[in-house]
Amino acid sequence: MKLTILHIGDIFGAAGRQALAALLPGLKASLRPDLVIANGENSAGGIGITPETAGEIFLAGVDVITTGNHVWRHREIEALLDDEPHLLRPHNYPGDAPGRGWVIARTQAGPPVGVLNLEGRVFMSQLDCPFACAEEILAGPLAQTPVIIVDFHAEATSEKAALAWRLDGRVSAVLGTHTHVPTADERILPGGTAFQSDVGMTGPHDSIIGVETEVAIQRFLTARPARFRAAEENPRLQATVVEVDAATGAALHIQRIDAPLSERPGQP
Amino acid sequence: MKLTILHIGDIFGAAGRQALAALLPGLKASLRPDLVIANGENSAGGIGITPETAGEIFLAGVDVITTGNHVWRHREIEALLDDEPHLLRPHNYPGDAPGRGWVIARTQAGPPVGVLNLEGRVFMSQLDCPFACAEEILAGPLAQTPVIIVDFHAEATSEKAALAWRLDGRVSAVLGTHTHVPTADERILPGGTAFQSDVGMTGPHDSIIGVETEVAIQRFLTARPARFRAAEENPRLQATVVEVDAATGAALHIQRIDAPLSERPGQP
Amino acid sequence: MKLTILHIGDIFGAAGRQALAALLPGLKASLRPDLVIANGENSAGGIGITPETAGEIFLAGVDVITTGNHVWRHREIEALLDDEPHLLRPHNYPGDAPGRGWVIARTQAGPPVGVLNLEGRVFMSQLDCPFACAEEILAGPLAQTPVIIVDFHAEATSEKAALAWRLDGRVSAVLGTHTHVPTADERILPGGTAFQSDVGMTGPHDSIIGVETEVAIQRFLTARPARFRAAEENPRLQATVVEVDAATGAALHIQRIDAPLSERPGQP
Amino acid sequence: MKLTILHIGDIFGAAGRQALAALLPGLKASLRPDLVIANGENSAGGIGITPETAGEIFLAGVDVITTGNHVWRHREIEALLDDEPHLLRPHNYPGDAPGRGWVIARTQAGPPVGVLNLEGRVFMSQLDCPFACAEEILAGPLAQTPVIIVDFHAEATSEKAALAWRLDGRVSAVLGTHTHVPTADERILPGGTAFQSDVGMTGPHDSIIGVETEVAIQRFLTARPARFRAAEENPRLQATVVEVDAATGAALHIQRIDAPLSERPGQP
Ligand SMILES: [Fe+2]
Ligand SMILES: [Fe+2]
Ligand SMILES: [Fe+2]
Ligand SMILES: [Fe+2]
Ligand SMILES: [Fe+2]
Ligand SMILES: [Fe+2]
Ligand SMILES: [Fe+2]
Ligand SMILES: [Fe+2]
Repeated sequence: MKLTILHIGDIFGAAGRQALAALLPGLKASLRPDLVIANGENSAGGIGITPETAGEIFLAGVDVITTGNHVWRHREIEALLDDEPHLLRPHNYPGDAPGRGWVIARTQAGPPVGVLNLEGRVFMSQLDCPFACAEEILAGPLAQTPVIIVDFHAEATSEKAALAWRLDGRVSAVLGTHTHVPTADERILPGGTAFQSDVGMTGPHDSIIGVETEVAIQRFLTARPARFRAAEENPRLQATVVEVDAATGAALHIQRIDAPLSERPGQP
Repeated sequence: MKLTILHIGDIFGAAGRQALAALLPGLKASLRPDLVIANGENSAGGIGITPETAGEIFLAGVDVITTGNHVWRHREIEALLDDEPHLLRPHNYPGDAPGRGWVIARTQAGPPVGVLNLEGRVFMSQLDCPFACAEEILAGPLAQTPVIIVDFHAEATSEKAALAWRLDGRVSAVLGTHTHVPTADERILPGGTAFQSDVGMTGPHDSIIGVETEVAIQRFLTARPARFRAAEENPRLQATVVEVDAATGAALHIQRIDAPLSERPGQP
Repeated sequence: MKLTILHIGDIFGAAGRQALAALLPGLKASLRPDLVIANGENSAGGIGITPETAGEIFLAGVDVITTGNHVWRHREIEALLDDEPHLLRPHNYPGDAPGRGWVIARTQAGPPVGVLNLEGRVFMSQLDCPFACAEEILAGPLAQTPVIIVDFHAEATSEKAALAWRLDGRVSAVLGTHTHVPTADERILPGGTAFQSDVGMTGPHDSIIGVETEVAIQRFLTARPARFRAAEENPRLQATVVEVDAATGAALHIQRIDAPLSERPGQP
Repeated sequence: MKLTILHIGDIFGAAGRQALAALLPGLKASLRPDLVIANGENSAGGIGITPETAGEIFLAGVDVITTGNHVWRHREIEALLDDEPHLLRPHNYPGDAPGRGWVIARTQAGPPVGVLNLEGRVFMSQLDCPFACAEEILAGPLAQTPVIIVDFHAEATSEKAALAWRLDGRVSAVLGTHTHVPTADERILPGGTAFQSDVGMTGPHDSIIGVETEVAIQRFLTARPARFRAAEENPRLQATVVEVDAATGAALHIQRIDAPLSERPGQP
């Protein structure tokens, strides 16, 4: 039996939520995914996530929301992290952070899918080791689940590839998020784990990784803060589809998706 | 009149040089590029470049070699940087670094192509501002050259996109290098500048960005140094082709290339 | 003729402003400084500076205010940076930042004192090179001023020492700020330049570099944001006095000052 | 009963070893310390430590050697880390690193002293959490030892202070190393823990934190590698003495030491 899993890249601001709501139904109709995962860490105005934007994302048809370094921006999400098992935060935050980073999600077809959310450390925060954390969760709560998708929210290509090769043969996919740029390196590693360094961003692509272009450029030119503004133009949904053998968890196929909210001239 | 420019991603070690030598002739036969640019900063054993590996790269059919942060690794390259105008280093190194970061390369078809090599600063070294440096070179030595390709050797997706949007309409392409992972965001910006966050790596792709997999994993697991070993398996040539209107410098088309040295089962 | 210059470390929040107002008059009475410089980048609630806190600092008897990376926090300071020549920001910000980083300050005794404010780059922002910037200002507007004090607002001990040794014999003193911890390395370098890696903090010292202790500890324990709170306990004024030969600019003496707002048992 | 503990800052190169050998006997005669700890991570040519330099340090009269981020530079030290319990490496390295980071050292007077070596993460490597690691060791192997000295090898003043305040009342001292610059903030925190952000460097002080001045300056001016050279001039021993109540572990006194190898004019 084959499971199809759709993993959607960081949903950024209103433009990202719109692209999601408008495009996901069609994608579900054509791909018939057994599970839809989406990273929602930028869904609230471009930084963070709120109960409202999480609700919107679930309502649009997402089964599991993953997040990343921006998840703590709005404190009102903390209660929902505790209460809603399908809303994840990177599991390798130290101590007693609200919520958790893994879930065993049921699918209509029957076989459950484990989802694990981790965050990288290179050029990022001082967290617990994502490699060690993965071992712990794979040996513990996800030990009986053959199909496992890891959202590795990280900056450095080396750290992402290292985790994927480390887990090769033990999880179905390691899919990167955080850079907001999809990579063209999707493949299935020798042990059967699908890997892509970054799934990309569901949001406004006439922007600097979601941020209004002029604001971001000014920051680089001046090295001074400039008021954050989420961009709006050229909303696209970027995602990756992984097909998995439900019995073994081995990935069978991996494919990128890059869908514009509306067809426009001059866009790829 | 249309110019076709082939830009090859970081050539990594012996495997990368082999892939280049074996695959570039065929690519030239099919694409008939007017200019071939390649980033050679990892050509010597995976770190740095020597006169020998630079010679090999030129001999394989490359017209202009760009580099990056690893260019200073082998001191014997410094004389060649001074003497060979088609061997570039990022121009925004401060002071009186050997060599320079731009060249006006002649093409058989007639119209010359300006090539500019810059290095990013986010998560990298304390260099002169690449944005200001670009302004200076565009207003100075490259002012009369409509067709200009920028190799922006940088880590952060935000910095790469910001430079591309900043230069949109003023250069033919901003092509990123350094992460060793090709991005799937190639496009032509509204002003006519082709942009891709990273062209990828020409080297061994069963690896962690070129490094032998086990070595790289051990570094992440232990946080201790592990002896560097270049990987060898799955050599691929990754590059990007840009077609440019020679009169205006506007990009007409951009396309990724990802060619295996040998067809093997199980590879994408 | 000898000039005495008092340089006060980063004034942090209300506690810092109180310590300054209470202690500076006595210090001036005893030391009779010809010029008082103070770093005010943390004077507004612990982050940034406002026209109000700058006014308080001037009113307390400070002649020149230097700042650092936090100077841009409150936008209302920008007009004052443009208008008040005795309020400095690090000069090596790129482009057309408000204000400037040097001033030639008059003293009652006659000989003016040049003050130059620079910011480091190691572990900090992508600014213009502070070494090159220093050369430019020393060769330009401060060329005729023998007595020059440099406030180098930087993190890394190596960068601070390198600038001091680089400028040895050309400025009267290189005094570091930013770490909020005074260093015990005050000395006069062979060429006659006084140097201290960091002058320290004028603020609440029962704290983590000014921040309320529990808040700062929680940030380290959780890697999550915790609401910033300026500490209040154990206010101290930390500063350094440099005596300079007015004719040559050579430093004659350098001495640390660490004064509690009120004598309390158990404090050093 | 009172214990006197002498903690010596990073021993840097031949100049540092000479200063140690020449000055420690006199210091022991005058201070009569019950235990001498020294950080040896720079003892071999300025980077790392070897069995030979470790032997020299022990022979000079040091009881416990701590280290830091440079400890892994020379692989031949790994066996000694495993075999010699008085040679420590930061305990919070992940996995099965050679050696360990704590020891219970016997003293002539009777009461043993626990020594714990940790490394910071801010601006440094991705290690296990030093705060959590401290809790584990304090609750485990050092639980029965009232007198405990922590060598916290770290860069950021905030991280050092946070650990000290976190452990206040539970260890006798938190003494920082790594910046090679002694800080003037030595004090006893309210709970009885002595704290100093950095003990400083035992090595050549006419240098940039040990490195030959011109080499270090060139690195900042050029952003290119320059061949490392350990400096030699102005060797000094920098250390801190802590007096501790042997029964409770509470610190009674803390004092900096800064001793030149030879008295020279013009030095502080
Ligand atoms: Fe994101
Ligand atoms: Fe993120
Ligand atoms: Fe590279
Ligand atoms: Fe690179
Ligand atoms: Fe400050
Ligand atoms: Fe600062
Ligand atoms: Fe050190
Ligand atoms: Fe160190």
